[in-house]
Amino acid sequence: MAPRKLQIAAAGLGRMGHRHALNFLNRAPRAQLVAAFSPDSKEHEWAREHLEPHGVTLYTDYDEMLKQEGLDAVVIGTATSVHAEEAIKAMQKNLHVLCEKPLSTSVDVCRQVVEEAKKRPHLKVMCGFSRRFDDSYQSAYGKIEQGQIGRPTILRSQTCDKHDPSGFFVEYAAWSGGVFVDMSVHDIDLTLWFFGNQIVPKSISAHGCIAVQPGLAQHKDVDNAVGIVEFWGGQIAYYYCSRMMAHGQEDVTEVIGTEGKLSVNLNPQINLVQTYSGKGITKEVPAHYYGRFEMAFVKEANDFAAACLDDTPLPMPIENAVKAVQIGSWLQEALVTKRQIHFDQSGKRLGKANL
Amino acid sequence: MAPRKLQIAAAGLGRMGHRHALNFLNRAPRAQLVAAFSPDSKEHEWAREHLEPHGVTLYTDYDEMLKQEGLDAVVIGTATSVHAEEAIKAMQKNLHVLCEKPLSTSVDVCRQVVEEAKKRPHLKVMCGFSRRFDDSYQSAYGKIEQGQIGRPTILRSQTCDKHDPSGFFVEYAAWSGGVFVDMSVHDIDLTLWFFGNQIVPKSISAHGCIAVQPGLAQHKDVDNAVGIVEFWGGQIAYYYCSRMMAHGQEDVTEVIGTEGKLSVNLNPQINLVQTYSGKGITKEVPAHYYGRFEMAFVKEANDFAAACLDDTPLPMPIENAVKAVQIGSWLQEALVTKRQIHFDQSGKRLGKANL
Amino acid sequence: MAPRKLQIAAAGLGRMGHRHALNFLNRAPRAQLVAAFSPDSKEHEWAREHLEPHGVTLYTDYDEMLKQEGLDAVVIGTATSVHAEEAIKAMQKNLHVLCEKPLSTSVDVCRQVVEEAKKRPHLKVMCGFSRRFDDSYQSAYGKIEQGQIGRPTILRSQTCDKHDPSGFFVEYAAWSGGVFVDMSVHDIDLTLWFFGNQIVPKSISAHGCIAVQPGLAQHKDVDNAVGIVEFWGGQIAYYYCSRMMAHGQEDVTEVIGTEGKLSVNLNPQINLVQTYSGKGITKEVPAHYYGRFEMAFVKEANDFAAACLDDTPLPMPIENAVKAVQIGSWLQEALVTKRQIHFDQSGKRLGKANL
Amino acid sequence: MAPRKLQIAAAGLGRMGHRHALNFLNRAPRAQLVAAFSPDSKEHEWAREHLEPHGVTLYTDYDEMLKQEGLDAVVIGTATSVHAEEAIKAMQKNLHVLCEKPLSTSVDVCRQVVEEAKKRPHLKVMCGFSRRFDDSYQSAYGKIEQGQIGRPTILRSQTCDKHDPSGFFVEYAAWSGGVFVDMSVHDIDLTLWFFGNQIVPKSISAHGCIAVQPGLAQHKDVDNAVGIVEFWGGQIAYYYCSRMMAHGQEDVTEVIGTEGKLSVNLNPQINLVQTYSGKGITKEVPAHYYGRFEMAFVKEANDFAAACLDDTPLPMPIENAVKAVQIGSWLQEALVTKRQIHFDQSGKRLGKANL
Repeated sequence: MAPRKLQIAAAGLGRMGHRHALNFLNRAPRAQLVAAFSPDSKEHEWAREHLEPHGVTLYTDYDEMLKQEGLDAVVIGTATSVHAEEAIKAMQKNLHVLCEKPLSTSVDVCRQVVEEAKKRPHLKVMCGFSRRFDDSYQSAYGKIEQGQIGRPTILRSQTCDKHDPSGFFVEYAAWSGGVFVDMSVHDIDLTLWFFGNQIVPKSISAHGCIAVQPGLAQHKDVDNAVGIVEFWGGQIAYYYCSRMMAHGQEDVTEVIGTEGKLSVNLNPQINLVQTYSGKGITKEVPAHYYGRFEMAFVKEANDFAAACLDDTPLPMPIENAVKAVQIGSWLQEALVTKRQIHFDQSGKRLGKANL
Repeated sequence: MAPRKLQIAAAGLGRMGHRHALNFLNRAPRAQLVAAFSPDSKEHEWAREHLEPHGVTLYTDYDEMLKQEGLDAVVIGTATSVHAEEAIKAMQKNLHVLCEKPLSTSVDVCRQVVEEAKKRPHLKVMCGFSRRFDDSYQSAYGKIEQGQIGRPTILRSQTCDKHDPSGFFVEYAAWSGGVFVDMSVHDIDLTLWFFGNQIVPKSISAHGCIAVQPGLAQHKDVDNAVGIVEFWGGQIAYYYCSRMMAHGQEDVTEVIGTEGKLSVNLNPQINLVQTYSGKGITKEVPAHYYGRFEMAFVKEANDFAAACLDDTPLPMPIENAVKAVQIGSWLQEALVTKRQIHFDQSGKRLGKANL
Repeated sequence: MAPRKLQIAAAGLGRMGHRHALNFLNRAPRAQLVAAFSPDSKEHEWAREHLEPHGVTLYTDYDEMLKQEGLDAVVIGTATSVHAEEAIKAMQKNLHVLCEKPLSTSVDVCRQVVEEAKKRPHLKVMCGFSRRFDDSYQSAYGKIEQGQIGRPTILRSQTCDKHDPSGFFVEYAAWSGGVFVDMSVHDIDLTLWFFGNQIVPKSISAHGCIAVQPGLAQHKDVDNAVGIVEFWGGQIAYYYCSRMMAHGQEDVTEVIGTEGKLSVNLNPQINLVQTYSGKGITKEVPAHYYGRFEMAFVKEANDFAAACLDDTPLPMPIENAVKAVQIGSWLQEALVTKRQIHFDQSGKRLGKANL
Repeated sequence: MAPRKLQIAAAGLGRMGHRHALNFLNRAPRAQLVAAFSPDSKEHEWAREHLEPHGVTLYTDYDEMLKQEGLDAVVIGTATSVHAEEAIKAMQKNLHVLCEKPLSTSVDVCRQVVEEAKKRPHLKVMCGFSRRFDDSYQSAYGKIEQGQIGRPTILRSQTCDKHDPSGFFVEYAAWSGGVFVDMSVHDIDLTLWFFGNQIVPKSISAHGCIAVQPGLAQHKDVDNAVGIVEFWGGQIAYYYCSRMMAHGQEDVTEVIGTEGKLSVNLNPQINLVQTYSGKGITKEVPAHYYGRFEMAFVKEANDFAAACLDDTPLPMPIENAVKAVQIGSWLQEALVTKRQIHFDQSGKRLGKANL
C-alpha cells in the first residue's frame, strides 16, 4: 500500500505563499497539497490554473479551509500581520504548522504562538528560517560541530537585497518591523544556530542611514544598517543589511573561531559560468532571495513533511523564532533611539527601554 | 480534472538507472513512474522498498514490462550493451524513449536506433546528455546565441573523474568503448551544441597514458587522454579526460570566440562554503558526476516529460548522439593507432581506417 | 650629470624600520640611503652587514645623525613612543619626514607634529599609511572617483592578523594604544580616503572580546573588536580587527555605493597557485602584513622621494593621520567604556568623555 | 668598502629591451647598468633621457659597446634574429649573457650559442624564460618537488595574448618562428622544468586555425593553435596558444599528478579589486604579458646578477633553451604539415621530416 502522505493546506498564495504551495505540490514527494486559501482574487485566478487541476481545493476563507477533512498540516505564507493568528487557529484544529518567518513583528505576539505550541507538544510547529535548510549552511554547521574552527567567536552576516526602485520597500516598511526584524532576523537565527540557542546578549549597538529610499524616513526605517550584538559568553555577532545592492542578492556569512574560519557565499554567483570580455571576467549574481535559496525552501518542505510523518524533531525549536525577532527588535530600537542597550547575565535588560 | 501525466517505465535500476527512476517518481510532477524493470535481484530488493509502495509495478523481464497497459514512455538506464535493443523494442511498442548515454559504443548500432526513430517521428527519442539540461551550460549557450563572444572558435572541455582505486574502472573498460567514447562523449556533445550540429571534422589527433590503473592496458584503454578535433569551418575542440583526480569530479568547459570567452565550472565546488585554516582557504569539490549534475538530471526528466506530453521538440536531435559517439570512436582510434585521422569537406574519411 | 637623489636617513631598524631602510637603499632609484640610526646593538650588527658596505653611515644617536651633512629627509621606523619627537626634531633640521604610522597613540602628541609641519609648508611630512600606495586600493579609489559606484555610502574594512601564540601581542598591547588605534587605524584612513577627508563623525559604537590572548585584559585590550562609525553625511563605516586568524593576514575592504560596490582582497592569496587534493582546492594566504603590502611600501618610498625632489603634493594631508588616530581612540574608548559616543555636526563631542 | 656590482650593458632598447635596461638600472641593486646599445634613433632618444643621466654610456654599434672597459655582462633584448650572434660575440669578450628568449627561431643557430657557452663554463649564459622567476611558478615547482601531487603526469599550459587589431602580429609572424616557437615555448620550458629536463618526446600532434588575423596565412602561421606532446616516460603536455583574447593576457598552467594537481593563474587578475554592478561581479585582467610577469623579470635580473657575482648555478641549463625551441619547432611543423611526428626512445625522430 502506498505510504501515507502529509495532507497539507497552503494559506496565502502571494510572493512566498505560492512558492510554498508549489513546492508542497510538486517537490515534496511525501506531502500532498490538498487545499489552498487566499483572500486575493488574483491569487485565486492563479490557483485555479496551477493548483485546482491537481486536486487542490481552493478557499477564500481561512477558517473554512481548516475544516477540510483529513488535513494534517498548514503552511502559512500570508501577510506577516496574520501569521500568528492563523498559526494558533491551525494548532487549535490539531494541525502541524510551517509558518513563513517571522511569526510576528511583535515579540509578544510571537510568544503567544509559542505558548500555544507548548500546549500541544505532539504538533510540529516551525517558523521557516530557510537558511537552516541550505546545503552550504548545513555543511558549515557540520564543520563547526566537528570542531574544525575551534570555538566560534565572531559571526559576520549580511542580508543584502538588490535595489528595487519601484517604491515597494517603502510601502513594505510600514509593517515590516524594520530592516533588522525583516532582514537581519535570518542572520540572527544563524547566530543562534552557530553560537548555540542559549547565548545571552550582553549589549547591542546599531546605526543606519537612508541612501536611496528617502520615503523610509516616515516609517523610521533605513535602507542600510549595521548592528553589533555582544554576548555574555564572549562572542560577538555583527550584521549588515541593505536594500541597495546594484548587483543582486548578496547574503554572506562568516564564522570565525579560535582555530579557523568558515565563510558561506562570500562570492555570490547565479551559476558556474564566467564571461570574459574587454571589461574583464564577470560572474552574475542572483537577483533575488529565492534565486539564492530556492533549494533550501524545497528541502524545508521535505524536512517538515518528514518530521510530521515520522514524528522526528524539527531542526530548530520554535522558541528560537521568538528570540531572533526579539534581538532584531532590540537592534531596531538601538538604531532608532541611537543608544546602546545592555543586559545582565540572565538576559534581563538593564535600564529602561528607550522607546 | 487532473492533467494527464506521462506514464513512464524505468529499465535498469543500477547506478544511473535508480536515479532516473527516483527522479521520475519524485521530482517530475508531470510524469508518473508506473513500472520498473531490472534483471538484478539486489536491485529488485531495493525497488520493493523504494518503488513498489508508490504504485510502481516491478518486472524481471523487459519485454513483459513493455506490455503493461497505459505506458507512454521508457527511461533506459541499463547496461550500455542493451541500450539500443531496448530502445528499439520500446519504439516498436510505440513508446517514447529516454535512453542513458551512449546508445551504444558501436556507431553502427547507434545508427539502428536512429533509423528506427526516423520511422516514428511522432515519438520522442532522446539520448540523455545531461549537460544539455544544466543551468550553467544553458546559460552559456544563451550567451553564445546572443553573440556575446562573437563566433565560437575554440572549445576546451574536460571530463575528469575522481580516482577510484577499487579497480572498478579497469573492469568497466572491457566494454566502455574507451575513455573518449565513455567520458569525452559529453564534451563532444557540447561541441556539437556550441559549434552547431552540422560541423564537419577535418582532422583528429589523440594521445593517452596509463598513470594509475595499469590493468587498463589489457583493454587498450588509458586513464588520461588528450585529443584534438579540427573542423572544416575553422573551429578546434580539444578534450582532456582522466580518471585520476585526487580532489573529485572536475568537468570544465571553455568556449573562446572571436570577441569573448565563456567558462563553465572552472572552479569546481560542492557548495558555497570556504574553510580557512593554517593550510589556507579551501573549497571542497563534488566527488562524483552526479554531485555536479544532479539538478540537470532532474531537469532532463521534467523536460522529457513535457516534450512527450506537449509534443514539443527535444533539445537535441537523436542523430547527434550518433555523431558524438562517432567522433569519440575516432579519437579512441587515433589514440590506439597513434595516427592522425583526416576527412574531406563532406566528412568522408581520407585514407583507410587504421584498425 | 646624474640627477640629484634624495639623501635620506633611516631611524630605527626593527621590524618595519629595516624594511624602510632596505627599500630606500635598493628599491627607490631616486633616493639614496646615506645614514641609519638605531639604539639597538643587534640592529647595528645587522646594519653593519647590510647597510654600511653600501655607504650608509651608522649612528647610535638620533640627534647626531640629523647633523650629517647633505641630508634631505628622514624615514622614521622606531618605536611609536618616539615617532613624534623624532619627526619634530627632523623638521626643525629642515628635513622632509616619512614617519611610520601612527605619529603617536596620543591625539595631542599627533597634533604637535602637525603644528610643527604647518610652520614649514615647504617640507614634505607624511605618516605612512601604506594602503594608500597599494595598487588595488589605488584602483578602487580611481573607480570611485569615476563614479562607478555612485555615492560611496557604506564601508566595511577589516585588519586581521594571523594568531601569534608567542605572547608578543600581549606585551605590545601595553603601549599600542589598543586594537582600534593600532590596527583599525588603517581602515579608518581608507575611510577618510574613500569618503573624503572632511567627513564628520556623528556617533561611534564598539564591542570587543578576548578569545585567545587572556593576558590582554591587563592592558584593557582585546583580540577581536568590531566598531561602527556613523558620519553626518549619512555614511557608515564599520570595522573588524582581530589577532586570531588561523590562516594568515586577511585585510579586506568593501565600499558600497548607491550604484555599485567594490571589494579589495575579499579572497586573500599569497600567489596565483591553487592546490588540489583530497581535501579540495586550496589557496594559501600571506602570513603577515608585509606579505600583503610589500609592494605598497616600495611604492611609498618612491612616491615620497618623488614628492620631495619635485615638490609635488603628497597623497594625503598630515592632518589625516591625526584624524585617523582620533577616530581610533574614540572607538577604543567606546569599546572600553561600553558606551556609544555622539558628536554634533561640527564634530564637537556631545556629553563628557567617558574615560 | 662597497661590494662590487655587476657592470652590465643592455643591447636593444625596444619593447622588452628597455624594460631589461630599466630593471638593471633601478631594480637590481647588485647590478649597475653602465652601457646601452641600440641601432634605432628613437630608442636612442629615449635612452638619452632615461639612461644617460644615470651614467649609462650609449652606443649605436654593438661591437663598440662590448669594448667598454670593466664590463661584466650583457643583457640582450634586441630583435630575435641577432640574439645568437650578439650572445656569441659577448661570450667571446668573456662576458656573462642574459639573452631574451628565444636564442633563435632556428634550432641550429641555438645550438651554436650553446656550443660557445660550453667552451666557457665560467660564464653565466642564460636564456630568459621569465616564468622560471615568477613567484607562483616557483611555489608550484616547490610543491611538486615536495611530492604534493605525486608523480607529475599531465601538463596543460596556455599562452594567450589579448587580441591586437593593429596588424602587428601579422608582420611579426614573418620572422617569429610561428606561434608554437614564439608563444608556447614558455609552456614547453615549464614542461621541462616540471617534468624534468631529461624527458624525451615520443609523439607530437598539432592543429591550428586563423580566426581573426587572415594575414597570417601568408606566413603559414595561425592565431589559435593546440598541440600535444607525449613523452616516453608516460607524461603528456598539451598547449594552447592564441592571439585572440578579448579580455587580456591569460597564461594558465595546470600540472596533474598521480596524487594531486596544481594550477597557476587559473583566474587571471590585474589586482585584488572586484567591481559589483548590474552586470555582476567583475575582475579585470592584465592587458599584456608584462602586466602578468613584471616582477618575474625583476627577479630574473636580480638572480642573474647574483649568479654572476657569486658564481652560483643558474636556475636552468642553457641546453633547455634549445630543447624548448626544438619542441616548439616540431609542434609548428606538425601544425603546418598536418602530420603527427614520432620519436624513438632515444629521442631520434622516426620517418623523415615533413618539411
